[in-house]
Amino acid sequence: MIKVAIIGATGIVGQQAIVALANHPWFQITKLAASARSAGKTYAEALREANGASRWWCPEELPANVASLPVEDAADFDPTSVDLIFSTLDASAAKELEPKWARTTPVVSTASAFRYEDDTPILIGGVNMDHAALIKVQQERRGWKGFVVPKSNCTIAGLVVSLKPILDHFGVKQVIMTSLQAMSGAGRSPGLSAMDMTENVIPYIPGEEPKVETEPQKILGTLAGDRIIHAPFGITATCTRVPVLDGHLVVVFVQTEKPCTPEEAKEVMLAFGKDFCQLGLPSSPAQLIAVTDDPFRPQPRMDRDRGNGMTVTVGRLRKDPILENGLKYVCLSHNTKLGAAKGAIQTAEYLVKYYLKWL
Amino acid sequence: MIKVAIIGATGIVGQQAIVALANHPWFQITKLAASARSAGKTYAEALREANGASRWWCPEELPANVASLPVEDAADFDPTSVDLIFSTLDASAAKELEPKWARTTPVVSTASAFRYEDDTPILIGGVNMDHAALIKVQQERRGWKGFVVPKSNCTIAGLVVSLKPILDHFGVKQVIMTSLQAMSGAGRSPGLSAMDMTENVIPYIPGEEPKVETEPQKILGTLAGDRIIHAPFGITATCTRVPVLDGHLVVVFVQTEKPCTPEEAKEVMLAFGKDFCQLGLPSSPAQLIAVTDDPFRPQPRMDRDRGNGMTVTVGRLRKDPILENGLKYVCLSHNTKLGAAKGAIQTAEYLVKYYLKWL
Amino acid sequence: MIKVAIIGATGIVGQQAIVALANHPWFQITKLAASARSAGKTYAEALREANGASRWWCPEELPANVASLPVEDAADFDPTSVDLIFSTLDASAAKELEPKWARTTPVVSTASAFRYEDDTPILIGGVNMDHAALIKVQQERRGWKGFVVPKSNCTIAGLVVSLKPILDHFGVKQVIMTSLQAMSGAGRSPGLSAMDMTENVIPYIPGEEPKVETEPQKILGTLAGDRIIHAPFGITATCTRVPVLDGHLVVVFVQTEKPCTPEEAKEVMLAFGKDFCQLGLPSSPAQLIAVTDDPFRPQPRMDRDRGNGMTVTVGRLRKDPILENGLKYVCLSHNTKLGAAKGAIQTAEYLVKYYLKWL
Amino acid sequence: MIKVAIIGATGIVGQQAIVALANHPWFQITKLAASARSAGKTYAEALREANGASRWWCPEELPANVASLPVEDAADFDPTSVDLIFSTLDASAAKELEPKWARTTPVVSTASAFRYEDDTPILIGGVNMDHAALIKVQQERRGWKGFVVPKSNCTIAGLVVSLKPILDHFGVKQVIMTSLQAMSGAGRSPGLSAMDMTENVIPYIPGEEPKVETEPQKILGTLAGDRIIHAPFGITATCTRVPVLDGHLVVVFVQTEKPCTPEEAKEVMLAFGKDFCQLGLPSSPAQLIAVTDDPFRPQPRMDRDRGNGMTVTVGRLRKDPILENGLKYVCLSHNTKLGAAKGAIQTAEYLVKYYLKWL
Repeated sequence: MIKVAIIGATGIVGQQAIVALANHPWFQITKLAASARSAGKTYAEALREANGASRWWCPEELPANVASLPVEDAADFDPTSVDLIFSTLDASAAKELEPKWARTTPVVSTASAFRYEDDTPILIGGVNMDHAALIKVQQERRGWKGFVVPKSNCTIAGLVVSLKPILDHFGVKQVIMTSLQAMSGAGRSPGLSAMDMTENVIPYIPGEEPKVETEPQKILGTLAGDRIIHAPFGITATCTRVPVLDGHLVVVFVQTEKPCTPEEAKEVMLAFGKDFCQLGLPSSPAQLIAVTDDPFRPQPRMDRDRGNGMTVTVGRLRKDPILENGLKYVCLSHNTKLGAAKGAIQTAEYLVKYYLKWL
Repeated sequence: MIKVAIIGATGIVGQQAIVALANHPWFQITKLAASARSAGKTYAEALREANGASRWWCPEELPANVASLPVEDAADFDPTSVDLIFSTLDASAAKELEPKWARTTPVVSTASAFRYEDDTPILIGGVNMDHAALIKVQQERRGWKGFVVPKSNCTIAGLVVSLKPILDHFGVKQVIMTSLQAMSGAGRSPGLSAMDMTENVIPYIPGEEPKVETEPQKILGTLAGDRIIHAPFGITATCTRVPVLDGHLVVVFVQTEKPCTPEEAKEVMLAFGKDFCQLGLPSSPAQLIAVTDDPFRPQPRMDRDRGNGMTVTVGRLRKDPILENGLKYVCLSHNTKLGAAKGAIQTAEYLVKYYLKWL
Repeated sequence: MIKVAIIGATGIVGQQAIVALANHPWFQITKLAASARSAGKTYAEALREANGASRWWCPEELPANVASLPVEDAADFDPTSVDLIFSTLDASAAKELEPKWARTTPVVSTASAFRYEDDTPILIGGVNMDHAALIKVQQERRGWKGFVVPKSNCTIAGLVVSLKPILDHFGVKQVIMTSLQAMSGAGRSPGLSAMDMTENVIPYIPGEEPKVETEPQKILGTLAGDRIIHAPFGITATCTRVPVLDGHLVVVFVQTEKPCTPEEAKEVMLAFGKDFCQLGLPSSPAQLIAVTDDPFRPQPRMDRDRGNGMTVTVGRLRKDPILENGLKYVCLSHNTKLGAAKGAIQTAEYLVKYYLKWL
Repeated sequence: MIKVAIIGATGIVGQQAIVALANHPWFQITKLAASARSAGKTYAEALREANGASRWWCPEELPANVASLPVEDAADFDPTSVDLIFSTLDASAAKELEPKWARTTPVVSTASAFRYEDDTPILIGGVNMDHAALIKVQQERRGWKGFVVPKSNCTIAGLVVSLKPILDHFGVKQVIMTSLQAMSGAGRSPGLSAMDMTENVIPYIPGEEPKVETEPQKILGTLAGDRIIHAPFGITATCTRVPVLDGHLVVVFVQTEKPCTPEEAKEVMLAFGKDFCQLGLPSSPAQLIAVTDDPFRPQPRMDRDRGNGMTVTVGRLRKDPILENGLKYVCLSHNTKLGAAKGAIQTAEYLVKYYLKWL
C-alpha cells in the first residue's frame, strides 16, 4: 500500500478525499494534517464543536480507522513521512507549503495555486495524460524530487471532457457558456447562506469566470517540448449559483471549425476515453461521457452520480439555429467528485502507475 | 368603471389576474368564466376540492366580492355582457373561443394562440405601443368590432424590454441566451413535481425555445403599413427550469451592430421608457428597467417584485471578452406579473385609454 | 435463485423494489406486471413518455436485464409463474388481486389493503417476527396455499422499531408524536406539486393519522393463539409534510409505565435487534437502531441512508420536563427503504428462510 | 412625529425594523446606531461589502432617507437625542447598553436580556397589555425615567396568542408542542448554511426549548401588585428547523382544565382580541387570530403574511383521541414580523399612546 497524507483534512474537500479513499486498493491514509487549531487532537476530536455537533459533513460514515488518526499541524508536516500527499488547502496556504513538500514528495492538489505556472500541467483523466511529461520540466527547473500537480477548476471539468472529442475531430472555434453551479462548490466555512440560496439564483461567483475562460485552453493545449501551447479558441462565460447540492450543469454553445452534426458529436463523445477507462484505474468510470437522448436530462440530482461521480453526462445535443457551425448542448459533472477530491485521486492513480511506475 | 370578465378564472393565471385587478381604479370584475365543471357554482365553491382544500393558490387573500361571483361556462360566455375580456385559457381553447368574443368585444389574452398571426400585435408596455395600430388591420380583415391582443411568452418579456434601448441606439446583430426559469411558469394543473424540482435543474422546457427564438424579432420589429417587419437579428436559446418560485432570469450575450460599452448600455437602459411610465397607467412601474451595480444581483427572490413586478432588473453588464461588439448581462423579470396577468392588464390599460379612448 | 415478480412495476415503489433487488443473492426478478396500459411493452418502453422523457425516477441506473423484460397485465397475471410476488399496487387494486394470487403463491405487499385483517400480520424486521405464525391462521381460514403479508405504514416504521425495546423493558403508557414526513411518501403520480412544497410545510396528510394512531399497537402486540392482542397504549399524532426528499422524522414524547432514564433508553435501543441482525438477511443492516449524541442529529438528508436505509437513527434522547415518566426523542427512518420496498424485501427474506424454509 | 433610533441597524432585525417603520404615521427614524465598525459611514455605505455586494437583505427597497443617515457607534449613543429607542442588539450587548439608555429614554427591545427580570413585562399585542403597569415598578426600582420592554421569543408568539383565549375560557393544564421553525430565525451573520438546510430538517435549536418552555407562563400570568404570577401550566417542547424562509409553525397538543370542543376553541379564538384591534394601532391587524377550516392550512408560505404578518393562523383544530380534555391544532405566526421587529413596534405604539400618552 502507498502511504498517503491528506492535508487540509478537516475541510470539506479533505473529508471528501477521505470518503473517496475508503477501501482504496492502492492508497492508505496514514497521516492527516490541518491548521494549528486542530493539531494534537484525533481527527474525530478535531471535528467536534463545543456545542456537541460534528463537523463531519459527508453522509457517508467517517471510517473508524481515520477517526482515530492524530491530526498534525500542516505548517510543520514532514513530507518524507508518506509516499504521496493530497493537498486540499486554500490557494494561499498551498502556494506557501506545497513547494516545501514537493522537494521530496509528490503532491496532488485541489488548490489553484500552481495551475497557471508554465511548468505545471493541469491533468484531467483521459483528456491530457500526455501533459504529465511536463512534470519532468517542473522538477528540473525547481530542483524538486517530488512535484505539484493541481486539479482543474471544478466548473470546467465536465466542459473540457465533453469538448475534447469535438476538438479532436472537428476543431473548436469558440465557446459561449453559462454555468448553473451547485452550492457545494462554495465550500462549508461557512459556505453559502440558506437565506440567500432558498428558491433563488445568484448570478455571480467571485473569481470564477476568469478561470473558466482560460483553464480549458491550457488543458486542451498541445505539449511542445517543455511547454504547453494553449488551444487557440476563446471562451466567454457567465457563472451562476443555483440551489442544487452537487453537480455543475453547463449550458454550452460551441462553434466548431469543421461542420459537426449532433449525431457526429454524440458518436465521438461516446467513443471518447475508452482507452483511458480500460486502464482500470480504481477511480475511473466505465465511460467518460454518457450521452442521453431524454431531452429532460441531464439533471444534477439524477445524473451526478453516474459512474460514481466520474462520468460526464451530455444531453440536448442539437444544431444551433444561428451560429455558424454551431452546436448546442448541456453537460453535467459532479463538482466534488470528478471536479475535486476524486478527480485528484484519479490523477494520482494515473501518475503512480504510469509516471512514477510504483505499481 | 369598465366591466371586465376573467375567463379561465379558476386557473392560476386567472387567479393572478384577480389579484392584479383588486382595487383597480378603472376595471371592475363583473363576470367570471371557466370550464363547464365549474359553471353554476360561486367562485369560492368552484375552487373548493372534495377533501376540503381550496385551489386558491395566491398568498394574497381572495377578494370577498369576487369569491361570491357565479362562474359561467366559458363555452357559452356572452361577450356583450362586459366591456373587456381577459382570457387566460390554454392555447387550444383560446384559438376556438377568442375569435367568437372578438366579434363584439376587446379580448386581451395570455394565451399564445394568436401571437403568430400577421395581423395581430404582441404588445409589451413601453416597447412597441405603436404596434397597436395593427389592431385596425385585424378588425378589418376579420370583420371584428372587438379584437384579440395576446401578451408575449413570459420568458422573453424581460429580454425584450432590456434589448429595446440597445437595439434603438446600437443595433442588435445576434443574441445568445440561457434562461433560468421559475417553476410558476409551468402552471398548477398540476405543474411541476416537487420530486423533480427539489435541489435540481431540468434543462428543457417543451415548446419554449422556438417561441423564445422568434417572438422578440416580431415585438421589436417595425410597423410598415399593415404588417410588422421583424427585427433582423437571430436568437439562439437554451431554456432551463430552476427551483425558484417566481422570476425568470435570462443570461444574455448580445452582439451589437455598433460598439456599445457597458456604461453606454446602462445609460440607455436607465433612460428607456420614461415617456411610457409618465402616462401613469395604473399597472406601470416608476421605471421599466433598473440597472444594479451589485454584481450579485439581480436575484429572482430579491428583485422580482421591483416596481410591483413590472420593472425589469438588469445586472452584471460587462464587455464580452471574445465576441465582436459583445456585451454580457443578466436580466430578471417577474414571469407571472410583467410576463403574464399583470402585463396583460397593463396592455389593456393602454388600449382602453389611448387606442379605444374610453377614458 | 427464487423467481420473483414485481407487480405495480412501473410505479415508484415498484421501481424502488427493482433497485433494491439488483444483484440480490436469493431473488431474481423474472416477471413484471403493471396496468393494462403498459402490458405488451418492454419495461423500458413502458416507462418512455411521448415527449421522450423516461419515467424511471431512481437515480440508480435501470438494470439492463430488467429494462428488457416484458410487462404483463397485472389483472391477468399468473401467480404460478413465479415463486414469490412483490405487490406494490394501490390499496383498491391490491384488495382485489392479491387474494387471487395468494391462493397459490406468497405475496409480500406494500399496500395497506390487508393490514387491518385479524388473520394478517404486519411484519417489521426484528420487531415481531413471531407474528409470522399468524400466516398459518390466514392460510387455513382462507384456504390459501400462499399468503398475503403487508408492510406497515411508512411513517411508523421508525417509531415502532424505536419503541419496541422501550416497551419490552419499561412498558409504554402513551405516545404523543408529530411527524415531519418526506415528499417521496406522496408518490409520483404525480405526487406533490413543487409550487406547494417549496420553502413550505403542509400540516396535513390525508388518511395518515388514523393509520399512525392504530398500526403500532398491532405490530407491538402479543400473539395469542390465532390472534394478536394489541399493545394497550394510546397514540396521538399530527402528521406534516416537509420539503425533504426522503426520510421521515418523528418527534416523540413517550410516557413509560416504569421510569426510564435517557441513558437506559439508549442502552436498550443499542442492544435491540442484535439477534435479528445476526441472521444475516441480505437486506438487514448491522444494527437496527443507531443512537446519536450529536444534538443536531438525526437529520433526514444526513442519516436516512444509514445501514443502507434500514437502520433507524434516534437522537435528542432526554427526560421530559413535565410528563410523568416522560421521555423525549426524535427518530428517523428511510420511508422508501425501511418503510417501503426494501422493508418488504427484508420481510420476504425472513419468510423465505425461516417460515417457508426454502433456503 | 416621534423621533426614534434603531440600534443594531445593520443587522437583519434592524433592517426589518426599518422596513416596518417606512411611512409610519407616528414614528420617524432619525438616528441609526450599530457597531464601531459601521460608525461614521452612511447607512448605505455601512451595508456595502468590499466585493460590491450590499448587505441589505430585505426584498423591500431601502428607503432613500434612511440610506443616507449616518450610523453612530452604539456604545456611544446619546439616548436623549431621540424620543424612543428600538434596540435589536444581541443579548450580551443589550444587557450592557440598554440600562444606560433607559435612564432617560424608553427602550423597546428584541433582545432577550431583560425578559426574565421580575420587574420587566414581556408584552404581546392584545394578550397582556395590563402587564405594562409593571413598567412603573421597573422605573422605581432602577431609578429610570425611561424603561426597557423586551419582545418575547419569536417561536412562542403565535402559541401564546392562540392559547390566551383557551386559557381565559377553559383553563390550560399542560401543553406538548413541536415547532417547525423558519430559517430566518437564525439570523444572517451568517445564519444557517445552505448545505445544512437544503431538503433537510435540523431537530435542534440551541437554547430555544428552555425559552419556549418558560416564557409563555410569564406572558400569560397575572399581574399582582408589583409582580407577575406565572400561569400554572407546564410546557414541553421539541424545536426543529425546517427549510422555510419565514413563518414558525407550531404543532400543539393542549390539555385544558375544563372540556373544550374544537368548535368552542374556534369560537373563542375568533372572538379574541377584537378590543385590541379596534384601538387602531398602525401595526395591528384586523384580527389577531384567523382560524382556517381548510385541513391543509396554515402553511408558512401561504399564511405568514396574513394581517401583514401580524395575524396568527390556527388550523386543524380537533379533539385529541387519547389525552384527557385534549385539543390538537397547529398555529402559524410570522417570526420576523409578529415575532420580532414589527411586534416590537406594535408594542411601542401601544405604550406611546396608552402608557406614555404622548398621542
